[in-house]
Amino acid sequence: MRNLLFKIAFQGAAFHGWQQQENAITVQGELKAAFKRLTGENVNIIGCSRTDAGVHANEYFFNVRTEATIPVESFPVALMSAKLPGEISVYSCKEVDFDFNARFDCEKKEYEYVIENTKTPSPFYYKRAMNYKYDVDVELMNKAAKHFIGTFDFSAFCAADAQVKSKVRTIYDASVFRDGDLIKFRVQGNGFLYNMVRIMVGTLLYVNNGKIKCDDIPSIIESKDRTKAGITAIPDGLYLNKVFYGGESIEA
Amino acid sequence: MRNLLFKIAFQGAAFHGWQQQENAITVQGELKAAFKRLTGENVNIIGCSRTDAGVHANEYFFNVRTEATIPVESFPVALMSAKLPGEISVYSCKEVDFDFNARFDCEKKEYEYVIENTKTPSPFYYKRAMNYKYDVDVELMNKAAKHFIGTFDFSAFCAADAQVKSKVRTIYDASVFRDGDLIKFRVQGNGFLYNMVRIMVGTLLYVNNGKIKCDDIPSIIESKDRTKAGITAIPDGLYLNKVFYGGESIEA
Repeated sequence: MRNLLFKIAFQGAAFHGWQQQENAITVQGELKAAFKRLTGENVNIIGCSRTDAGVHANEYFFNVRTEATIPVESFPVALMSAKLPGEISVYSCKEVDFDFNARFDCEKKEYEYVIENTKTPSPFYYKRAMNYKYDVDVELMNKAAKHFIGTFDFSAFCAADAQVKSKVRTIYDASVFRDGDLIKFRVQGNGFLYNMVRIMVGTLLYVNNGKIKCDDIPSIIESKDRTKAGITAIPDGLYLNKVFYGGESIEA
Repeated sequence: MRNLLFKIAFQGAAFHGWQQQENAITVQGELKAAFKRLTGENVNIIGCSRTDAGVHANEYFFNVRTEATIPVESFPVALMSAKLPGEISVYSCKEVDFDFNARFDCEKKEYEYVIENTKTPSPFYYKRAMNYKYDVDVELMNKAAKHFIGTFDFSAFCAADAQVKSKVRTIYDASVFRDGDLIKFRVQGNGFLYNMVRIMVGTLLYVNNGKIKCDDIPSIIESKDRTKAGITAIPDGLYLNKVFYGGESIEA
């Protein structure tokens, strides 16, 4: 039995999130069904992250322990051919140590949040970005984002109903930059709480529109009070962008 | 009563083409319904082109004669707010001469066909490009495309069942170029026959894979025989890119 690590990408608008559910189309559910069709096995698909409904992935890893003898170089195309929806692409596959776990061995993740900064939203960014019609001070938002860097209890940036033991996370880097009509927020951390990136974006937009000040962010973090931070930005703009194992972004 | 010209864009994957049909979601049908909700009128939506199911528009114009008194600068947002699907964006609106007709007054159109040239298709180009896994000789395809420029009877590049009086069209420009992983075919003409751009793409790919020679294209045109040209490329990659009135691409 081999333990195989797959690199995929998916368009989140087509799915009710990563995690398998009854009566809903999910990325994990579609992958499991494709494996069943291809190999006859009922495999356990271990994903690197539980992304929400509507959230996208430019890069996502999962591992699966399988008796299938399909060569790793043929597996991506074989899996896609097993009626996997076109909104999921399988980029590569490689064999890893039998105890490798795509979720627990993940050391760092990078998310990107895309804001389409136009008065006239493009139909081609529908469900792929948040539309924001007002002026954006990119420099100010970038300055505000730098306050997220460090190791903090991010309770103020976590959905109120989330149940985790510790809400301490380390953010390695955070920045806001313009890319044509798009404003992008990119953030790397050792882990992210439920809705954390989306609340960060809501808070940065509060800084932009003057509802809070740039230098209010440290005291908002310190308060551990969800009500002090900004709103939760819509899922449409959120992309899991890179996943790091052993310190490096790997080619599966 | 004013005659208003609207500039829109739409993502074709969401629609069964432009033209209104019973029991199918179409761009024209959705616009007509949004007008009815907004103004109470049953307007006649005159589009610049009858795009097929799955075909996109980066730029598309329609005109409508209306009693509505909504100012032109407010009309785009008002129309989008009238439950127009997010896959249609209304960019602008302006008043034009009462006898202006978006279809008959159109002098030139530009189409773009997008080929995603990768072995591993991105889920973000699903239904927005044709995937082509093999090597592409862009220079050769561009050279072949130049043979389309001129005034010819394009019967060989028209769906066999199309019923039009004349199949003579003038192509002003045609080129193939690379844009990262994408290969784009851009073509401007005074009009296009049914499936014409898609058959041109199929023929250029025949040149690329050696099935026909670059310099066979003039004799294929001359043959007026549909069976001599390449296959009809899928609609997913086709975009109406620019529409010209009075010689110029206009800002509605």
